[in-house]
Amino acid sequence: MKKTNKSSGVRLRLVLAPGIAFGPGKAEILKGVKETGSITSAGRRLGMSYKRAWLLVNIMNHDFNGPLVKASKGGQSGGGAILTPLGERVLDCYLKMLAKTEKAVGRDLKQLKKSISI
Amino acid sequence: MKKTNKSSGVRLRLVLAPGIAFGPGKAEILKGVKETGSITSAGRRLGMSYKRAWLLVNIMNHDFNGPLVKASKGGQSGGGAILTPLGERVLDCYLKMLAKTEKAVGRDLKQLKKSISI
Repeated sequence: MKKTNKSSGVRLRLVLAPGIAFGPGKAEILKGVKETGSITSAGRRLGMSYKRAWLLVNIMNHDFNGPLVKASKGGQSGGGAILTPLGERVLDCYLKMLAKTEKAVGRDLKQLKKSISI
Repeated sequence: MKKTNKSSGVRLRLVLAPGIAFGPGKAEILKGVKETGSITSAGRRLGMSYKRAWLLVNIMNHDFNGPLVKASKGGQSGGGAILTPLGERVLDCYLKMLAKTEKAVGRDLKQLKKSISI
């Protein structure tokens, strides 16, 4: 079972241009960075390897017209990471779109759930 | 690049229960069966192997409380396949939900597209 299939509900994936997509995984990484201040912690929370979390961040930073996540060096506690203003805007926009989707299709989803075999 | 990332727009995935999801791929298979009368042709149209198309159909037929696709044997032209009434309902419901989603988030998507680097 895919990790993204664990809890029932709507998953929204936005294809912004051919080959450039933003969906639940990237949104969770941004949310995780915002809440934990670290790319590694954000990835760990999602059961994702350090390498994969960084890869997703690098892809996002490359796809948008500015970085969404900025790594900060140094300090006694080692490096951390924060969302840039653009990163905050992209995450906010995605979460708003997800909420609008849930509102728009919530009733249909409830109906459709009645058609499954469990 | 994933096939599903070729054209820009919204992708909607519904997790109906843990491990039971219905999204663009399954919807395209149902649409293809409806339009071509054949699981193999439906898969071919999506660049999918015969085996994968049948696998998706079998998963759907198992996940819902009745088959969505019914294979029909025989005739001079060999076997074909049709959507069952439940299959028609599930496809219609998904397509309506997709249209509602596109309407609900269309403006935001247009805005977000301005933030990418191409």
